[in-house]
Amino acid sequence: MHDILIEEKILSENDAIAHENRRAFIERGVFVINMVSAPGAGKTSLIEKMTPLLLEALGAFAVVVGDLEGDLDAVRIAGYGVPVRQITTGRACHLDAHDIAHALQWALGQNARLLIIENVGNMVCPAEYDLGEDMMVTVLSVAEGDDKPLKYPAIFNASGALIINKIDLAAHTDFDIPRARRNALAINPALQIFETSCRTGDGIEEWCAFLASKTLARRPKADTNR
Amino acid sequence: MHDILIEEKILSENDAIAHENRRAFIERGVFVINMVSAPGAGKTSLIEKMTPLLLEALGAFAVVVGDLEGDLDAVRIAGYGVPVRQITTGRACHLDAHDIAHALQWALGQNARLLIIENVGNMVCPAEYDLGEDMMVTVLSVAEGDDKPLKYPAIFNASGALIINKIDLAAHTDFDIPRARRNALAINPALQIFETSCRTGDGIEEWCAFLASKTLARRPKADTNR
Repeated sequence: MHDILIEEKILSENDAIAHENRRAFIERGVFVINMVSAPGAGKTSLIEKMTPLLLEALGAFAVVVGDLEGDLDAVRIAGYGVPVRQITTGRACHLDAHDIAHALQWALGQNARLLIIENVGNMVCPAEYDLGEDMMVTVLSVAEGDDKPLKYPAIFNASGALIINKIDLAAHTDFDIPRARRNALAINPALQIFETSCRTGDGIEEWCAFLASKTLARRPKADTNR
Repeated sequence: MHDILIEEKILSENDAIAHENRRAFIERGVFVINMVSAPGAGKTSLIEKMTPLLLEALGAFAVVVGDLEGDLDAVRIAGYGVPVRQITTGRACHLDAHDIAHALQWALGQNARLLIIENVGNMVCPAEYDLGEDMMVTVLSVAEGDDKPLKYPAIFNASGALIINKIDLAAHTDFDIPRARRNALAINPALQIFETSCRTGDGIEEWCAFLASKTLARRPKADTNR
């Protein structure tokens, strides 16, 4: 087991940096989401599908992608003309606030109202690392099973929205969407839940409309200290 | 980023305990696998499907299940009359050698030739934590995408076998099984690869035959110090 004191220290340092990130994003009127999921739940495919709708609604947005190795996801997203910053985490199983602090000036320089952070595929560790985002968004693929909220409660608890993805596969699995919703809401009654399929496009519009409205509600602060 | 020195210290302590676990298992003739995967890849369902075949081939086997919270998986497996020990990891995103050391006497007391450790669903951290097993086995669901070996190389590299699971879903996804095999073998050419479906039962027999033969090849050492 990790030494709890060391872990608390790391987390409290992380929180302090996340606080600074958040202050900078709010100051500049940038709305930030932190997308988390198990590996292969479809975060990158969702961003690809969201791109035309978000560009239409917002004009521009930027993406930061975290991966252990390689730049497969970043290359996919950059192919749509969206500014992407790749963070290669090596052995680290999550992005931390320090990673985002390093990407902050780049992100603020994109003149985008929305920053999407695509975290490393991991349903455990990212739950504890505040990046300074406005909202954590968990993506759950129906292929993973409807019991996942009960088994990985921390990440569902830390999230403001849940996207149940790959609903086109639901008929071929034992995944029960109402049960998944009940399990998720039992952990976090405030979750906004969306159902999407990147294959059929179902639900993408509703999710993007929600995200765009959240983004547009964020206004840059006057350039003064409150 | 975690402090690298602290991490190295934790890992070297873990390795020392894993070494002791391994020695005890070898001494007693118990073959041990450490099943790892992303959340929802189907580890528990696989164990359920493997149970009758393994009982027939080996007479008995035991299971240790790691989960952040709850005992859903342990209850499922215990329903088949298989001895199960639950380890609740709380915030820890992986089992470590210390967890297994605590379960060691229990495991050795089951008179089983095979111990299956079902790790926490996580494709990153378990790769670094030797538990004292003979073989790490990665389970990859076709719903996760055939690029996963390239994105999470450490876990494929640490594994002796790869189970490509949920192949019944492959026709409904973009997952290309030959490409997944190529990607996995590019990371680790020694991987033994199996293709399974818990829905149709495809491939379970082949995988169990392999596992049983590995188990039966392990003979208890004479009770002397070498």
